[in-house]
Amino acid sequence: MREVTAYEELESRFGELSHLGHARAILNWDEAAMMPPGGGDVRGESLAVLAAIAHQRLTGPEIEALLDRAEDSDEQLGPWQSANLRLMGRWHRHASAVPESLVRATQIASTRCEQAWRIARGNDDWSAVSPLLEEVVRLTIEWANALGERLSLEPYDALLDGYEPDARAAHVAELFDDLKTFLPEFLERVLERQEIPVPVRGPFRSEQQYALGERMMRAVGFDFDRGRLDVSHHPFCGGVPDDTRITTRYNKEDFLESLMAVLHETGHALYSQGLPSDWRHQPVGTALGMSVHESQSLFMEMQVARSLPFMTFAAPIIREVFGVDGDDGAWSPANLHAHTIRVQRDYIRVGADEVTYPLHVILRFELEQALIAGDLTVRDIPDAWDELMTRYLGLSTRDNLKDGCMQDVHWFAGIFGYFPTYSLGALTAAQLFDAASRANPDLGQQIEAGEFRSLIEWLRREIHSRGQLLNAEDLLMEVTGERLDARFFKAHLERRYLTD
Amino acid sequence: MREVTAYEELESRFGELSHLGHARAILNWDEAAMMPPGGGDVRGESLAVLAAIAHQRLTGPEIEALLDRAEDSDEQLGPWQSANLRLMGRWHRHASAVPESLVRATQIASTRCEQAWRIARGNDDWSAVSPLLEEVVRLTIEWANALGERLSLEPYDALLDGYEPDARAAHVAELFDDLKTFLPEFLERVLERQEIPVPVRGPFRSEQQYALGERMMRAVGFDFDRGRLDVSHHPFCGGVPDDTRITTRYNKEDFLESLMAVLHETGHALYSQGLPSDWRHQPVGTALGMSVHESQSLFMEMQVARSLPFMTFAAPIIREVFGVDGDDGAWSPANLHAHTIRVQRDYIRVGADEVTYPLHVILRFELEQALIAGDLTVRDIPDAWDELMTRYLGLSTRDNLKDGCMQDVHWFAGIFGYFPTYSLGALTAAQLFDAASRANPDLGQQIEAGEFRSLIEWLRREIHSRGQLLNAEDLLMEVTGERLDARFFKAHLERRYLTD
Repeated sequence: MREVTAYEELESRFGELSHLGHARAILNWDEAAMMPPGGGDVRGESLAVLAAIAHQRLTGPEIEALLDRAEDSDEQLGPWQSANLRLMGRWHRHASAVPESLVRATQIASTRCEQAWRIARGNDDWSAVSPLLEEVVRLTIEWANALGERLSLEPYDALLDGYEPDARAAHVAELFDDLKTFLPEFLERVLERQEIPVPVRGPFRSEQQYALGERMMRAVGFDFDRGRLDVSHHPFCGGVPDDTRITTRYNKEDFLESLMAVLHETGHALYSQGLPSDWRHQPVGTALGMSVHESQSLFMEMQVARSLPFMTFAAPIIREVFGVDGDDGAWSPANLHAHTIRVQRDYIRVGADEVTYPLHVILRFELEQALIAGDLTVRDIPDAWDELMTRYLGLSTRDNLKDGCMQDVHWFAGIFGYFPTYSLGALTAAQLFDAASRANPDLGQQIEAGEFRSLIEWLRREIHSRGQLLNAEDLLMEVTGERLDARFFKAHLERRYLTD
Repeated sequence: MREVTAYEELESRFGELSHLGHARAILNWDEAAMMPPGGGDVRGESLAVLAAIAHQRLTGPEIEALLDRAEDSDEQLGPWQSANLRLMGRWHRHASAVPESLVRATQIASTRCEQAWRIARGNDDWSAVSPLLEEVVRLTIEWANALGERLSLEPYDALLDGYEPDARAAHVAELFDDLKTFLPEFLERVLERQEIPVPVRGPFRSEQQYALGERMMRAVGFDFDRGRLDVSHHPFCGGVPDDTRITTRYNKEDFLESLMAVLHETGHALYSQGLPSDWRHQPVGTALGMSVHESQSLFMEMQVARSLPFMTFAAPIIREVFGVDGDDGAWSPANLHAHTIRVQRDYIRVGADEVTYPLHVILRFELEQALIAGDLTVRDIPDAWDELMTRYLGLSTRDNLKDGCMQDVHWFAGIFGYFPTYSLGALTAAQLFDAASRANPDLGQQIEAGEFRSLIEWLRREIHSRGQLLNAEDLLMEVTGERLDARFFKAHLERRYLTD
C-alpha cells in the first residue's frame, strides 16, 4: 500500500473541517428559523465550541507542516487540486495570522457592542454605544494590521480580502467613483419621469405567500429534494449545498416584498446547489467571495425577477394563488412590475432600490476606510455620515442617527470590509446578465414564457460548477471577456428606468 | 491567582463535550423532522465527525490523567461534585474500554445490517439479512466481552449497564419472572370482560391535532419557551434541556394515537426541561438511565393520560378542538377513555397495550441474553421467537417473520441490552405514581380538574431536579421507600382493568 501524500492528508483534514462547517451551518439556520428563545444561550456556547475546534484544526502546526510538504512535493497535481492546495494555504494564513488572544478579545468586544447596539438603536442613543464601538474599531485596526502584515497587504485591503479574495480597495474605488458621478444625476431623471403604480390591496395570507414563493422557486430550478423554504426575522440563505435552506418573512400588506426576497435568496441557493459535487467538501468546491455570491442573488432578483418579461410570466400565477379574477388594473403584469421597480430617496440601505443602493454602500466604504486608516474617529462618524448622505442622496441624518449611522449591524458586530461586496455583486450581476443575453438571444422570450432551464444551465456551467477553480476576476474575464466594469450596470439602469 | 484543580479542569472539558452533544442532538432532531432527503449522506458524515471528535476527547490520555489526579486529590468536593466525578470516570471507562478498531467495525457492520433490514423486512426476507445480523452479533459479543472485562461485569450486564447504569440481568430476570407468571392469566381475564367502545369517526385534520397536542402539553407544564412540537416518522423526544423538541405523527382516522404519543413524549420532555440548571453541562446534570427516562414518559402516558380522570378533563377540550357538539356517545369521557385502554393480543411490540407490552419485552430480553452468551445462534432466532410468542401470547409467527423477529430495528442496528428498560420504566412509573398518590391524596381530583401543578412540582423535586446525583436504585429507594417491585404495576393493572 503506497503512502498517503501530504496533499491527500490535507484533503482528509479539510474534509473534516467541512463536516464541522455543516454542523455550524445547520445550527445557525436552526437558530434563526426554529429555535425557541430559551435555547439561545446554550446555542451560543455550542457554536463557540465548534468554532474553536475548527479554528484549532485549521491553524495547528501539523497543517502548516503538511502545507509546506505538499507545496514542496514534486507530486503532479491537476488544476482542481492545485487550486485546492492554494486555497488551503489561504485559509490557513487568514486563520493563523491573528493571535488567539486578539481573536478572543475582538469576539468579546463585538458581541458586547452588538448587544448594546440593539437597545441603543431603538432609543436613538449614540452615546450608549459609541464607546463600545471605539473599542471594536481599536481591536479591528490591530487585527487589520496583523493580517495585513502576514498577507503583505494594506490593513483595509486585508479585511476586504477576507470577504472578497484578491479584491483591493484602490480598484473598488475606481469602480465606485464612476457610479458616484453617474448616479445622483441619473436618480433625478428617474424620479422626475416615474409614475405611481395602482396599489395592490391585501391582506395576503402567509400560506398563500408561501405557496407562491415555492412555485416560483421550483420554476427557476430550486431543488426541494436538497433544500427548504422557511420563515425568519431577516431573509437569508443558509445550510449547505446538498441541503440549502432559504428563509423569508411575510408582510400581510405587500406580497411582492416577500416574493422578491425569496427570489433573491433563491439566486444564492442555486449557486449553493450548483457547486461542484466532485469537490463537495474541499475549499475549491466552495463558493467564491461575497461579490460573486451576491451577484447570483442580484442576477435572479434585479436582472430576472424585477423585469417585465418575468412579471408577464408570474402575474397569472400570482392571481391564481390569491384567487384574483381579471388581469387588468392593479393585477396587470405592467402594474405589478411597476411596483417592483419603484425608486425613492430613503435613509435606509436595506430595502433601498437598485439605483440608490450603491450610494448607501459607497458612503460606508469611504467611512470605514477612513476609520481603519485612523483618519476618522468614532466620535466624528455622525457628522461624516450626515455630510455624505447630504452630498449623495440629499438627505440629512443629523437628527436621526438611528436611521443614519446606527442603522446597520455590521460595524457594531466588528464587520469591516464587507459593505463594498454588495455593490460589486450588483455590477457583476449586470455584466453576467449581459453575457447571458449575448449567449442566448431568446432569453427575454424564455423568461416571459417561464422557461428558465437554459438560463440556469448557463449559470451552472459558467459560474456555479466552477467553485473556486478560478478567482472572481479570472472567472469574470473568462465568462464575459473583460474585467469588472460599471458600464453594464449603468446601461442596465438606463434601459430599465429611462426607456419606455 | 490560584491554580485550576484537576476536578475543575475536568468540568471544563466535560462542558465542551456537552456543547458537542448539543450540536449532535439538534442535528439528529433536524434529520428526523426537517432535513430534505438529499441532505442525508452529508448529514451522516457530519454526525460521524462530531461523534469521533467527542470520542477522542472523552478517551484521550489527558482525561485519564486528570481523573487519576482528581480522585487522588485531597480537595473537598461536595456531593454533586463527587457524583459528577464518579460519572466522568464512568463515561471515560465505557468509552475507552473498546478498541477504536472494534468501534469502527461495529459501526460499519450495523449500519450495513440496518439498511439491509429496511428492505428485507418489507419483503419478509429473513435470509437477506440474517448473515449481516450474524456479523453484528459476532462483533457485539466481542464488544460485550471487552467492556465486561474493563467493568468486571458479565458480558450481557456490561451492555445493559450502558443503557441502565448499575442494572444487572439477574435482578431484571427476577422482576420479569414475576410478570411472566402473572400476565398471561391476567390477560385472559381482561379480554373476557372488556367491552368494545363506540367508534370515534374522523377524519381529523393535522392542524386540529397539532392544536390539541399543544394545548395538552401546555396544560401539563411543557415550556414552549424552551421547546417545540413537530412531526416526524416516529415520535421521539430530542434536543437538550433548554431546547427540548418532541415530535409526533398524525393519523387522520385516529387522533387519540397522536395525542397519547404527544403526552408520552411530553413525559420525557418534562424530565429534560426539569434537569438541574446549576449542573446543565455536566454529567451529573444529565438524565439517569433509560428506565427512569421511560418511567417519566409512561408516568405521563399510562398513569396520567390513559386514566378516566384525565379524559374527564380532556374530553371537553377535545370536542372544542374538533368542533363536536354534545358530550354523549362516542365523545363522552368514558367512551374516549375506553379507547385509550383497549387490550389485545398482537404480534407487534410498538403500539402494544400496557398489559401485553412486558411479554413482548421479556421475550426479547431472554433471546438477546442467549445470543450474547452464545447459547442461541442467529439461524435459530425465528424458531425461538415463535416458541416464546406462542408460550407468552398464544400467537405463532412461523409464517410471518416480518411481524415476528424482524419487526424491531434494535438488534439489526447493534442495540442489545436496551429492551428491558422499556418494562423497567413501566414498573418504575407505577411505583412512582403510587408514591405521588400517597404524597398527594387529591391527585385524582386534581387531574380531573386539569390541575397538574402540584404533580409536576413533585416530579421536578423528587426526580427531575436531581439529575444523576443518585443512581436509579437509590433514587427509587429515597422517593418510594423501597427497591423496584412489580407489585405496584400489577396493582395498577388490576385497578384499571378488573375494577368497574
